[in-house]
Amino acid sequence: MTRLPDPLSILVAALSRLPGIGPRSAERIALHVVQSDAAHVEHLAHALAEARRRIRPCERCGALTETSPCAICEAPARDAHALCIVERATDVFTLEKAGAFRGRYHVLGGRLSPVNGVGPEDLRLDSLAERLATEPIREMILALGTDVEGDATAHYLAQRFSSPQVQVTRLAAGLPAGSGLDFADDLTLSRALEGRQPLR
Amino acid sequence: MTRLPDPLSILVAALSRLPGIGPRSAERIALHVVQSDAAHVEHLAHALAEARRRIRPCERCGALTETSPCAICEAPARDAHALCIVERATDVFTLEKAGAFRGRYHVLGGRLSPVNGVGPEDLRLDSLAERLATEPIREMILALGTDVEGDATAHYLAQRFSSPQVQVTRLAAGLPAGSGLDFADDLTLSRALEGRQPLR
Repeated sequence: MTRLPDPLSILVAALSRLPGIGPRSAERIALHVVQSDAAHVEHLAHALAEARRRIRPCERCGALTETSPCAICEAPARDAHALCIVERATDVFTLEKAGAFRGRYHVLGGRLSPVNGVGPEDLRLDSLAERLATEPIREMILALGTDVEGDATAHYLAQRFSSPQVQVTRLAAGLPAGSGLDFADDLTLSRALEGRQPLR
Repeated sequence: MTRLPDPLSILVAALSRLPGIGPRSAERIALHVVQSDAAHVEHLAHALAEARRRIRPCERCGALTETSPCAICEAPARDAHALCIVERATDVFTLEKAGAFRGRYHVLGGRLSPVNGVGPEDLRLDSLAERLATEPIREMILALGTDVEGDATAHYLAQRFSSPQVQVTRLAAGLPAGSGLDFADDLTLSRALEGRQPLR
């Protein structure tokens, strides 16, 4: 019985390390690759290496960018008074896609998690403190996950950074758009109730 | 609003062309790639290019191989009397993994499909005829899909290549192993009934 030829099994192993790619899809992709147009494969290999080489974290906000400081940090049209705090660099793309925020960002690079040994010193908080001291920031909007660790991180940030000059706010928790009560879990419902708004 | 930086959107587009990778998983993989260890990304890019460069179809049987003729064609221990006909090069790996066949293979490179304009001249039939003329093949085992096109291809091959010297057989159709009657569809059940075997 023969196994896959070496270059194929090496490729399958390398593909299996990507997020969301199991051994079976890795094999399917590898077999597709060796049978597809050589130019396409070259292009993909080049795109991988180039993206890794050219994309890096912005020295100011931590977002993924080709130029540092990034286009958002440098754009004069963005609101310099509002700073949105996110956990991961990819969260910036998610929020930009929604197109609802016109200020700047700061990437924490994680969230407080005592169980996993992540403390304040592991997050990008020194650079956050420096930005609060040097930029005309009036509001710090916490766009963090709504689980226990997100809550703990939000609490810590509010304690440490809120001041008469800087108001700390957090994204509303409540019912997702286009969804009914029957799809909401208990915690979402009780948070939506707590955060109820008067109708004008 | 900013879009993904160019090297990232180029990578997302290239990844989306792979089988089973939609735009969302392509984006997830791309964002993972630009944030992971540079050596891992280099390794993946290299594995892609190397697999494409080093793996090609065996000149004799059409299976994917580094050396041509492939290891299976060259192995003296394989039964030279039995030739297994498959549609695609990847079917060889599937059958080898099962470990149930000890003969050699011939890859058709497709199956007859008048609707899609695939005729006998598009399959690797000249090389098959040559092998039947020069190798001591006594049985040609058709391991084709069990749909209409698989049936048509099997019928055509049996008509054209069966002879007093070469018996043409086809893989049994019936109930899959480890499954009950309740999971079998009507066609599988009627084929299993047609192909019923006497118990010895």
